[in-house]
Amino acid sequence: LDFVLDAGRVWLLHGRPLTPAPLAAARIAVALAAAQIVKPAVALLRVDPGALERHLHPRCVPGSATPLAAGMPASPGAAWGLPVFSAAEALERSRRDPVILIRTETDAADVAAMQHCAGILTTSGGMTSHAAVVARTLGLPCVVGAALHLHAAAGTIAIAGRSALGRRDWLTLDGTSGRVYVGRLPLEPPVLSPDLRTLLSWADGYRKLEVHANADTPADARAARARGAQGIGLCRTEHMFFDRARLPLVRQMMLAADAAERRRALAKLLPHQRGDFAAMFAAMPGLPVTIRLLDPPLHEFLPTSPSDQAELAQRLGLPAAEVAARVERLREANPMLGHRGCRLCITWPEILRMQVRAILEAACHCRRQGIEPRPRILVPLVMDAAELALIRRWTEETAAEVFAAAGDRVPWQFGSMIETPRAALLAGELARHVDFFSFGTNDLTQMALGISRDDAGSFLPTYVSRGILAADPFVSLDAPGVGQLLAHACAAARSVGRHIDLCLCGEHGGDAASIRLCHQLRMDAVSCSVPRLPLARLAAAQAALTNNRQP
Amino acid sequence: LDFVLDAGRVWLLHGRPLTPAPLAAARIAVALAAAQIVKPAVALLRVDPGALERHLHPRCVPGSATPLAAGMPASPGAAWGLPVFSAAEALERSRRDPVILIRTETDAADVAAMQHCAGILTTSGGMTSHAAVVARTLGLPCVVGAALHLHAAAGTIAIAGRSALGRRDWLTLDGTSGRVYVGRLPLEPPVLSPDLRTLLSWADGYRKLEVHANADTPADARAARARGAQGIGLCRTEHMFFDRARLPLVRQMMLAADAAERRRALAKLLPHQRGDFAAMFAAMPGLPVTIRLLDPPLHEFLPTSPSDQAELAQRLGLPAAEVAARVERLREANPMLGHRGCRLCITWPEILRMQVRAILEAACHCRRQGIEPRPRILVPLVMDAAELALIRRWTEETAAEVFAAAGDRVPWQFGSMIETPRAALLAGELARHVDFFSFGTNDLTQMALGISRDDAGSFLPTYVSRGILAADPFVSLDAPGVGQLLAHACAAARSVGRHIDLCLCGEHGGDAASIRLCHQLRMDAVSCSVPRLPLARLAAAQAALTNNRQP
Repeated sequence: LDFVLDAGRVWLLHGRPLTPAPLAAARIAVALAAAQIVKPAVALLRVDPGALERHLHPRCVPGSATPLAAGMPASPGAAWGLPVFSAAEALERSRRDPVILIRTETDAADVAAMQHCAGILTTSGGMTSHAAVVARTLGLPCVVGAALHLHAAAGTIAIAGRSALGRRDWLTLDGTSGRVYVGRLPLEPPVLSPDLRTLLSWADGYRKLEVHANADTPADARAARARGAQGIGLCRTEHMFFDRARLPLVRQMMLAADAAERRRALAKLLPHQRGDFAAMFAAMPGLPVTIRLLDPPLHEFLPTSPSDQAELAQRLGLPAAEVAARVERLREANPMLGHRGCRLCITWPEILRMQVRAILEAACHCRRQGIEPRPRILVPLVMDAAELALIRRWTEETAAEVFAAAGDRVPWQFGSMIETPRAALLAGELARHVDFFSFGTNDLTQMALGISRDDAGSFLPTYVSRGILAADPFVSLDAPGVGQLLAHACAAARSVGRHIDLCLCGEHGGDAASIRLCHQLRMDAVSCSVPRLPLARLAAAQAALTNNRQP
Repeated sequence: LDFVLDAGRVWLLHGRPLTPAPLAAARIAVALAAAQIVKPAVALLRVDPGALERHLHPRCVPGSATPLAAGMPASPGAAWGLPVFSAAEALERSRRDPVILIRTETDAADVAAMQHCAGILTTSGGMTSHAAVVARTLGLPCVVGAALHLHAAAGTIAIAGRSALGRRDWLTLDGTSGRVYVGRLPLEPPVLSPDLRTLLSWADGYRKLEVHANADTPADARAARARGAQGIGLCRTEHMFFDRARLPLVRQMMLAADAAERRRALAKLLPHQRGDFAAMFAAMPGLPVTIRLLDPPLHEFLPTSPSDQAELAQRLGLPAAEVAARVERLREANPMLGHRGCRLCITWPEILRMQVRAILEAACHCRRQGIEPRPRILVPLVMDAAELALIRRWTEETAAEVFAAAGDRVPWQFGSMIETPRAALLAGELARHVDFFSFGTNDLTQMALGISRDDAGSFLPTYVSRGILAADPFVSLDAPGVGQLLAHACAAARSVGRHIDLCLCGEHGGDAASIRLCHQLRMDAVSCSVPRLPLARLAAAQAALTNNRQP
């Protein structure tokens, strides 16, 4: 403000709006509330949840380091590691050291390896490229389209006027700024400032939406508790399958020639999964843990390189050509719309039975330890009520066996993902078979718009730049289209005469505008990645303070 | 009927229902109407349109021939040809002789070659396998899952107890019965019996739906006229692109490094396309010809074999490795949801401009010849009104140029495919930019159910056998799910205050139950493959006689 003091009067001459950085905004807001100048409900509105994002991930402290190169900041956070140049190399070398996967672009065959990387760096692609999207989902720092010369065959990267860097040169990746540094720069863990903590505690008093976390490991679950999660909204069991000790068993299960061979592999997987789930329940005592049954296309797990196929052939006692032929048979033209989700349960019920057994045996085990488990079983990619009826029956049969053997009964809930447009349209019928719905808005967006997230990089940027789409629909919910499906499904679920719990668990659960829509649709909860929990708590409170819920 | 005559009285003892074969049913129905025992409107209901199917395709006359093998009758009709064992071989040898493509299974890379085959034979897969679905779409006879030993490397097929057959042995394929014969069996063209023609002429007086044809060539268009088509509901321009003379130009266009190079290839394609369209208009004087702009994923056109890539490299004057790299860059994880449809127009407007120019120049040319053309331009894979606004503007600009040069103006219509769920949900907004909607229910089914037609073979049979789905949703419209989207879009289109022409053009346009649904939804037309036109005319009349249309 420019002002003049003149004979006891204040003349305001000019003012310019100032947007303080989010931590400063929090400090000002809390101070104003403490001085009783504004009420907490007003103070809460002073911080932009989206701007918080950069403070919710580990940060890189560059000091005097100058960046080697810069690209687009595709997924926030920072990490360091040694360069690897292929998925196979990532899997191999990540056993010893943290690694940064460097590729021109990534694709579906890299996903298994990406789980084991500290960060992802590409020389091509944009904010909606495969690498960017997968990294955000995994919570990994990612820089895409970096101005670097990549020589994958030689195992080097280079920029003009500098000698090339190779496999032994540490790199630090800053996915928040899009910069790449040579060496191991110091990293700061994300710390919520005391003011922010105060604001969030106020937010918890105002919001109507519960905030849950998408968490696949006990470590994630514990971190989620520390950041205020009221449960696990989405535990993706397939992420457990990528574990090195299990992947060979998973592959054995998928390439089995018959149900008996498949059951043998599943029997070996059972104790691993039971251990996973017990640890998840222990990290969330008394709180809901929503476990999604195996979802992704099978071939994401399969060995594609000849050496991996040879290794698997040896393990299975099969000729390498036979393994290659079985892998080829599982190849799909459009895996996103293929043999995945509950279709795997329907065609291979033994997978369902193993997973249900693992979940409920883990729950019984926890009870014996004095931990109160609240398992929720979530069926993916549903399109028809008959799928749910059949899977519920098989689940109940397995539950009866487990409880009879344990001499105990643990309450469990059964739910359906709503991620095909047909599931949203027929939500009223689906609701008759379930206790809860979980809106998988990543897939729902893909199918409603007919856009594969993995392939959108070739046209989505043109769409956004030409103003055809206001924003990337995978970042912020498409209210006019996908929003209609959600509204229809919520209304249908509320019309069945008993409470169906409604939760959104797509990446949108960590986006403020999408959270506002969930609030307006009277959902019960959103579930988001662990780092974004504070953002979601604040956004949910702001939605409650400024928006009406639908009647 | 069992009966007894007793003292001037007739005692009916017993009756068994008899379903006459369709041609017999037609004869009985026409005779009953001629004798004034039933009215024509009742006679029309006596023939099952679905049962007509087998009489609408060329038929094989086995005589005393015994089949070599049998499989599933995946696409009706009969044909003979010489065996080929790969897509490349099919393309090569079909220049001289009719060929039968024999594969374990087909996949997307085979589609270009399948266009040039007389029939398709696979040793694996079921009624929803890739081969079956593509063959039905192309109207080719197809037998899948045939009990044959295929040695593709050796170029032979064999059955036990018989010497192997090779590349010089003629085969006859009967896709109606699922049988395979050795040699060239006589084929009978489909002929509509006089009774059936009478019934169909009555049907035309009762039905409310117009019946159009899906036809991609002038020969198809003429055949469609002969079978009563009232226009072309869907002309797929990409099928013109698979022509041998043009495929190299199409590939050049797609692999162009920049817009200038792309325009050079397009300029060479223009006269071909203009000729195509002029011939279509000439075959349908005074009737609407609906031309869909380029739709499929680009890589369907691309060379995948090293020899094809080498040939293209030579033509383009590029290193083979560069061509391979460009092909690789166009590869997609889920091509069905990728860079296709109007997304190609948006990113590469020069393709749109070439196609619009070819359509309207052809129309002006026809007018000079005294032929009245009625071009309708159809935009595929729309998901947002902004796409239509932009494409309409570009189309109008090109039209103004063409008409100024020709010194004439031809009326044209502009329409949108409704094939993404979002397009159906936002049909009210889309309708503001168009004269007509065309419901692409193949893609709409894929996206609403989240099922890739190419990959459904691994689970859809289990779904149908377990009763989860009553029928293959790609054969008969999914009324509870997809039907809701159609109903919503039809209602929205009717609420904009002027007439939006509504037509269904998916494979469902030739299915009696789906046609009934179109009638109930008050659509204006269905469009089906040429052979099925009589089926559609009859089914539309039956729908009008037995069903109410929505108010």
